[in-house]
Amino acid sequence: MKALVYHGPGKLALEEKPKPVLKDPTDALVRITRTTICGTDLHIKKGDVPTVTAGRILGHEGVGIIEEVGASVSNFKVGDRVLISCISSCGRCANCKKGMYSHCQSGGGWILGNLIDGTQAEYVRIPFADNSLYPIPAGADEEALVMLSDILPTGFECGVLNGQVKPGDTVAIVGGGPIGLAALLTAQFYSPAEIIMVDIDANRLKVAKKFGATQIVNNSEGTAVAQVMAMTENRGVDVAIEAIGIPESFDVCQAIVTAGGHIANIGVHGKPVQLNIDKLWSHNITLTTGLVDTVTTPMLLKTVMSGKVQPKKLVTHHFALKDVMKAYETFGNAMKERALKVIITND
Amino acid sequence: MKALVYHGPGKLALEEKPKPVLKDPTDALVRITRTTICGTDLHIKKGDVPTVTAGRILGHEGVGIIEEVGASVSNFKVGDRVLISCISSCGRCANCKKGMYSHCQSGGGWILGNLIDGTQAEYVRIPFADNSLYPIPAGADEEALVMLSDILPTGFECGVLNGQVKPGDTVAIVGGGPIGLAALLTAQFYSPAEIIMVDIDANRLKVAKKFGATQIVNNSEGTAVAQVMAMTENRGVDVAIEAIGIPESFDVCQAIVTAGGHIANIGVHGKPVQLNIDKLWSHNITLTTGLVDTVTTPMLLKTVMSGKVQPKKLVTHHFALKDVMKAYETFGNAMKERALKVIITND
Repeated sequence: MKALVYHGPGKLALEEKPKPVLKDPTDALVRITRTTICGTDLHIKKGDVPTVTAGRILGHEGVGIIEEVGASVSNFKVGDRVLISCISSCGRCANCKKGMYSHCQSGGGWILGNLIDGTQAEYVRIPFADNSLYPIPAGADEEALVMLSDILPTGFECGVLNGQVKPGDTVAIVGGGPIGLAALLTAQFYSPAEIIMVDIDANRLKVAKKFGATQIVNNSEGTAVAQVMAMTENRGVDVAIEAIGIPESFDVCQAIVTAGGHIANIGVHGKPVQLNIDKLWSHNITLTTGLVDTVTTPMLLKTVMSGKVQPKKLVTHHFALKDVMKAYETFGNAMKERALKVIITND
Repeated sequence: MKALVYHGPGKLALEEKPKPVLKDPTDALVRITRTTICGTDLHIKKGDVPTVTAGRILGHEGVGIIEEVGASVSNFKVGDRVLISCISSCGRCANCKKGMYSHCQSGGGWILGNLIDGTQAEYVRIPFADNSLYPIPAGADEEALVMLSDILPTGFECGVLNGQVKPGDTVAIVGGGPIGLAALLTAQFYSPAEIIMVDIDANRLKVAKKFGATQIVNNSEGTAVAQVMAMTENRGVDVAIEAIGIPESFDVCQAIVTAGGHIANIGVHGKPVQLNIDKLWSHNITLTTGLVDTVTTPMLLKTVMSGKVQPKKLVTHHFALKDVMKAYETFGNAMKERALKVIITND
């Protein structure tokens, strides 16, 4: 089968690999119909994610059709159309039992395209299939559902839910990439009064405005803090969502959060940050971090089916699996290419 | 009247000051019967708290008797015995209306012994008396109640409630001073399975054991992290309460918190810390900071009256107000003197 393989920092290749086989009775084999590329895949490409070793097929998002199931899989049968969660989880360990699937203690968590082969291929083996796949409702748009593998639940759980966005709140989202936009789309479930999008790219800010941001802040000159404080009459924001993962974006968040407010970190950070606890110790703030658990996938599926949220708006480009290298090139130059999410098809 | 006055870094003096007078109709004048010294007062003495200017009477804890009330005070009358909250609050501004008294927008918050004269004196003027004083129930032990001005609600709200201590949890308290011990006493309301006290002082650890710590960790050789991880079979703790306020204690907390766990900061920090978000971004943690709001004072008052918690155990020394300088000396050498809280009487 065709698969996108990582061969060490900077080296990706589309090549022929053996079709995966079931290993455990809880596995399912899925034929991929749609997949995509995540910002995390670009980090992997750069060599930033040491758990990913040479020879690994990348990708942790996608939808497809069940090709084969292990003996103990009971929720799915051959031919079912399924949504693949970026988080594999046994559903039975102590962490899974409290809904913290991202820290599954049976060897699950974020393993697809990381510790085991992933979804940027014709086929993928999905461990713990009963808990790691979701049935696709009849009539669903598969492209929209690809956004539910990772990006939409991540923006929602790590940004909106952890940040406890409430009606009337003033929310700032620092970083208008796909994940920040996913937070923007799902924050609107809770009717905040203001959503301020902060980015350095005028095009992304324009998109954010179209997607529901009430105000936009161009930080290309590093003046985001002053701009946000001016917009809030020096009060700051109730919720600051960190959707980049660098010290500079974290700093903006800790400078603009109001007393009693929340900083919800989504960004994947490569180095420590300075926490200004000398100022914040008395500021009654709550800072959260987290990998997505994808516990809200069924809920999000309903909001997509009802049209309440339209994640398909995030899709800007399409490629066939045979052109996946070109897809990486486009997504890797996202700003220049005005790319948000790319869909890779395997028909 | 006699009062303990700050005259710049390192300089405190007991001296004669004019008896305070009412300024606003919401004020009350209280004759102090019992007060105490807080760790924060020692920071002020060192010159660490720039908001405190020379000439200020220190102290933000105490109980006393109403001597006079302003025209609009309706909850109290002359002769009432009252508990003074360390937080003064109008009860009417936006922050007060959501219970965030510590950030009262009408000039309240932590002002006693900071922005206005405090309780280490024969008399004190209490602003917003209706919201900043609590009636003392008949039969209450005033020495125990002095602990409810600050230390008990601080340990409880900023440590136990912010940390969301639950039945069965493993809790670590880093710092066995009065505030850490207050967290230890009140954490037991919620029946955690284990409470590990971390300190460098053998005597304080012995006290912690007597007060309900299930395990103690002596960090005098900087091995707290390894010891706590060994005790928890490398799992870490559900709640890490930071009760000192220095980078080293913060580091212990961020190293021992389990996936999905809480770091509840109580410590007053004088400088920034390094947050290891490169490790914690995916660790699903919640970090909280906060000044005490003292919203739980009525609840704590009931637990003291019922004997469920016995904060009087924290009292180790007694002094008359005329000997307040000696009280500072003893409290300033807390480890050597085996001092926890000192009671200063004005009879």
